[in-house]
Amino acid sequence: MVAARNPLNIGAAARAMSNFGFHHLRVVNPYDAAFREARSAVGASALLANAEEYKTVAEAVADCTVVVGTTAVRHRELQHPLRRLEYGARLIRKRLPSSRVALLFGSEKFGLSNATLSHCHWLIRIPTCEENISMNLGQAVAVCLYELVRSGKRGRESAAKKELAKGEDVERITEMLNEALRLSGYPGPRASNELKIRRLLRRMNLSSLDAEVWLGVLRQILWKAKSSD
Amino acid sequence: MVAARNPLNIGAAARAMSNFGFHHLRVVNPYDAAFREARSAVGASALLANAEEYKTVAEAVADCTVVVGTTAVRHRELQHPLRRLEYGARLIRKRLPSSRVALLFGSEKFGLSNATLSHCHWLIRIPTCEENISMNLGQAVAVCLYELVRSGKRGRESAAKKELAKGEDVERITEMLNEALRLSGYPGPRASNELKIRRLLRRMNLSSLDAEVWLGVLRQILWKAKSSD
Repeated sequence: MVAARNPLNIGAAARAMSNFGFHHLRVVNPYDAAFREARSAVGASALLANAEEYKTVAEAVADCTVVVGTTAVRHRELQHPLRRLEYGARLIRKRLPSSRVALLFGSEKFGLSNATLSHCHWLIRIPTCEENISMNLGQAVAVCLYELVRSGKRGRESAAKKELAKGEDVERITEMLNEALRLSGYPGPRASNELKIRRLLRRMNLSSLDAEVWLGVLRQILWKAKSSD
Repeated sequence: MVAARNPLNIGAAARAMSNFGFHHLRVVNPYDAAFREARSAVGASALLANAEEYKTVAEAVADCTVVVGTTAVRHRELQHPLRRLEYGARLIRKRLPSSRVALLFGSEKFGLSNATLSHCHWLIRIPTCEENISMNLGQAVAVCLYELVRSGKRGRESAAKKELAKGEDVERITEMLNEALRLSGYPGPRASNELKIRRLLRRMNLSSLDAEVWLGVLRQILWKAKSSD
């Protein structure tokens, strides 16, 4: 949960997690430092007490291989693939046996920022009506987690899925490529370039092996760029 | 909603209803008469204002042909057929075009009483974990209504399917990256490096838009590498 304002919503999310068997709550920059006492976490106080707190999204998803954002918005100019929950959850379920997947929820007022979205591989939206697309945060969490455990055809395992790169490796690649661009005088405003590159790299769904190669490639390019400056 | 205690939960139920396109809220014996002012009914104040209030369950479901209760309990001696939400919702959906279906939610503390259950044709339960079967009322409503509107179709929604980059563009990217590696003194035999990079780029399944970005990125890096040599 990124920048959630109301501690009751964090507690409600914890409750829904324990209802549906999810255990790892991570909280980035909560507005209210006392969220751990939220009374709404009925039956989930241990889960809430064990929530990990982070300063940045990058740190929170560092060990995750798939990062999925949630959004109510349909028509904003999204830079990401957007999937309905029903379908997105299926993709997440396929990954879960072999990977750590992060599901990101934004603040009650603003949802996920563009900076946070740039860490996401893709997005899901809950199929709400046009008349009122915006759900309560705790309810949105409950619906998403329900869909994840909902029984359809579960557990169809396909052989030898490629092991995806961890968030921290993809982020290191992102930083190195951004540095190479700065050094080379790539045109355009730096902040928006950085977001563009971050999204670009998330769309590539790097395997952990390919991430190694990219790290080596960029290390070398950077070394050269610096030594000849 | 039968004998709900917390007006915030009634408001949350109203919000979820408007999120998922349900309009007829009926309230039986609410504990707090001021439930209509619940601030949790974000975007659903009209729906809440129009909620019909009843003294008895019998009156509330008088014009309904199917009455379905909700329960968290699995092992209580239920006198009713109990269905998992996924399956029960399918039956409800079949009925909806021709019948008025009532979906009953009980109080936060006690759920539906036996007296209320006696009005039900059958029951559904949300598939929660044994460790914490009891959901928050507003979250339970959201999950049930979501299941009712959930589409079996799992379409991918993002506007256009990504158009993949043409082979010639991927090959140009390959050549440019290989050149950048040569210039930077990347170790290893050149021929096998080139193959490695070619395979690496093919695994990325670049879209044509992303290929553009990569071409720009590499053009700039190469320009810098050459100009500083």
